[in-house]
Amino acid sequence: MSRIGRQTIKIERPVYIRESAAIVGVKEGEGPLRDSFDVVLTDDTLGESTWEKSESKLQKKAVFAALDKAGLEQKDIDYVLAGDLINQCIGAHYCMRDMDIPFLGLYGACSTMTESLSIGAMLIGGGFADNVLCATSSHFCTAEKQFRTPLEYGGQRPPAAQWTVTGSGCAALSSEKGIAMITHVTSGKVIDKGISDLTNMGAAMAPAAIDTLIAHFKETGFKPSDYDLILTGDLGHIGSDILIDLMGREGYNLRNIHNDCGKMIFDGEKQDTHAGGSGCGCCASVLCGHIMNEFKKGNLNKILVMATGALMNPMIVQQGESIPCIAHAVTIEKEVQ
Amino acid sequence: MSRIGRQTIKIERPVYIRESAAIVGVKEGEGPLRDSFDVVLTDDTLGESTWEKSESKLQKKAVFAALDKAGLEQKDIDYVLAGDLINQCIGAHYCMRDMDIPFLGLYGACSTMTESLSIGAMLIGGGFADNVLCATSSHFCTAEKQFRTPLEYGGQRPPAAQWTVTGSGCAALSSEKGIAMITHVTSGKVIDKGISDLTNMGAAMAPAAIDTLIAHFKETGFKPSDYDLILTGDLGHIGSDILIDLMGREGYNLRNIHNDCGKMIFDGEKQDTHAGGSGCGCCASVLCGHIMNEFKKGNLNKILVMATGALMNPMIVQQGESIPCIAHAVTIEKEVQ
Repeated sequence: MSRIGRQTIKIERPVYIRESAAIVGVKEGEGPLRDSFDVVLTDDTLGESTWEKSESKLQKKAVFAALDKAGLEQKDIDYVLAGDLINQCIGAHYCMRDMDIPFLGLYGACSTMTESLSIGAMLIGGGFADNVLCATSSHFCTAEKQFRTPLEYGGQRPPAAQWTVTGSGCAALSSEKGIAMITHVTSGKVIDKGISDLTNMGAAMAPAAIDTLIAHFKETGFKPSDYDLILTGDLGHIGSDILIDLMGREGYNLRNIHNDCGKMIFDGEKQDTHAGGSGCGCCASVLCGHIMNEFKKGNLNKILVMATGALMNPMIVQQGESIPCIAHAVTIEKEVQ
Repeated sequence: MSRIGRQTIKIERPVYIRESAAIVGVKEGEGPLRDSFDVVLTDDTLGESTWEKSESKLQKKAVFAALDKAGLEQKDIDYVLAGDLINQCIGAHYCMRDMDIPFLGLYGACSTMTESLSIGAMLIGGGFADNVLCATSSHFCTAEKQFRTPLEYGGQRPPAAQWTVTGSGCAALSSEKGIAMITHVTSGKVIDKGISDLTNMGAAMAPAAIDTLIAHFKETGFKPSDYDLILTGDLGHIGSDILIDLMGREGYNLRNIHNDCGKMIFDGEKQDTHAGGSGCGCCASVLCGHIMNEFKKGNLNKILVMATGALMNPMIVQQGESIPCIAHAVTIEKEVQ
């Protein structure tokens, strides 16, 4: 039994991130991480007539790019684990329609990237698969129209609002050697601390991140300083400040070890992105682009990556409910110590 | 390696369905399977002010009923695997908010019940968990307003339309002895044969069922006659006829061995349910109620259950796309031969 705590398992059989690919939109390509992506779009429509079709095509491009970089073909892949934010996850489904691979659909909102890595690592670690693709995407224009206001409305964004990343990432997990290994998986519980402000997702998601992070440290025995980087998915500036503050009160100093994909992907001052990036594609494109490049360069040896998701829809919040959230964490290591 | 084919794995470590529970609405409680459910509601609102909250409460009641019947507490459960049809799966999320169990969210539309059993069996079979809850739900009123027309509109239903089941089922999987075992898992690919009629889901889903079923027989070496029952999730009358017809042409005679949860749950003539029941809760409530009871009574020894899902949303069909579908199959056996 590889369970080492209520929420944490240790993956005993080696599971590698063999390769990964990240594709982003125009605005993301103008941000600080521009050189880390495999493709920066010059047209966020990708030539499609609707934004939903654009996002699905974006995810498909990321999946094919990851396959290509990993030197694998569709027939080599045992499962694709994927999902996205669009109602009924059509970004993933219309991507997968054109592929010939068994598919298991996930919904974890913006936690999807690490949810897929968690399940993927268990499927390989359990001996059920040799190669698994983990993919997700988001698109600013599908998210705005579905979760907020029609694009044409030009609604004002409050300072706590985040900017949904147009981007997709795909990681090819494998039982064979790769860039780095997934060694521990800490799965989140659904946490709702009563935040009901749809324009302050960072504050809603931070308690879920804290819950999973404390479980991870307690159950693994790791300290923050055991990591080169503790990377959250898309808490953004406000959620990250809450995380660092409240984790400090619990005795965990994250101040110089934490970063957040939503803080990293945009230059907030120049790009007018308020509290930072968000969306499934935020963690996916930063992890599958910049972070895995840093592993390749030898600049990172051991990180914890924890994508966070807000699990509401706009209607249930209009019905008076607050926002339940979740965070799934995985340890990625260059080599097992 | 327990992989025996492109889409099929054999679960080597014993995985049991320890117990299960099914709760349904008023109309389902008037159908032929009325005596097989743990609870038949007398009020489909469950005392809630919105249908979404009603569905979430329904799923929660099924989860607690399964825990209770299994003699387990929340602390005994390693993961809940759940999802539903409502946008962003809020049925599952607002259920899980009140629980203290690691959660992995799934989206497989009406295939969710067997998707959750598939992943759950792998998590236990791989040594990552001892107890996993697999749950899903649907509610006629959440589905009508979201996928079709407002209830108050009173739209006419064409003969090929199915009736979304108000129901929820939860299966408690365990590494310890139970009612029956999950021995094989055949995971589906996303199949789209070009059907774009949202009122004929059976026809859209049948090709996915056929694809998975043929893979299952080829990869396991099983014949239809090896099973006491081949049970599909919610193809309904039209989809079932297509399945039997086209499988016959492929050399597999399912005529006396197949049934469909959507055909079983309603008396179509008396209950005006046209092509039969549908929704995640259709397979979930029939499997977790009637079918598991039949295993307990000794009337079933080996079945294949395969829930089918239509992976579109209404908007993408309005945008001119057809309906991609998927089917996941699991073999449930009283005792391994």
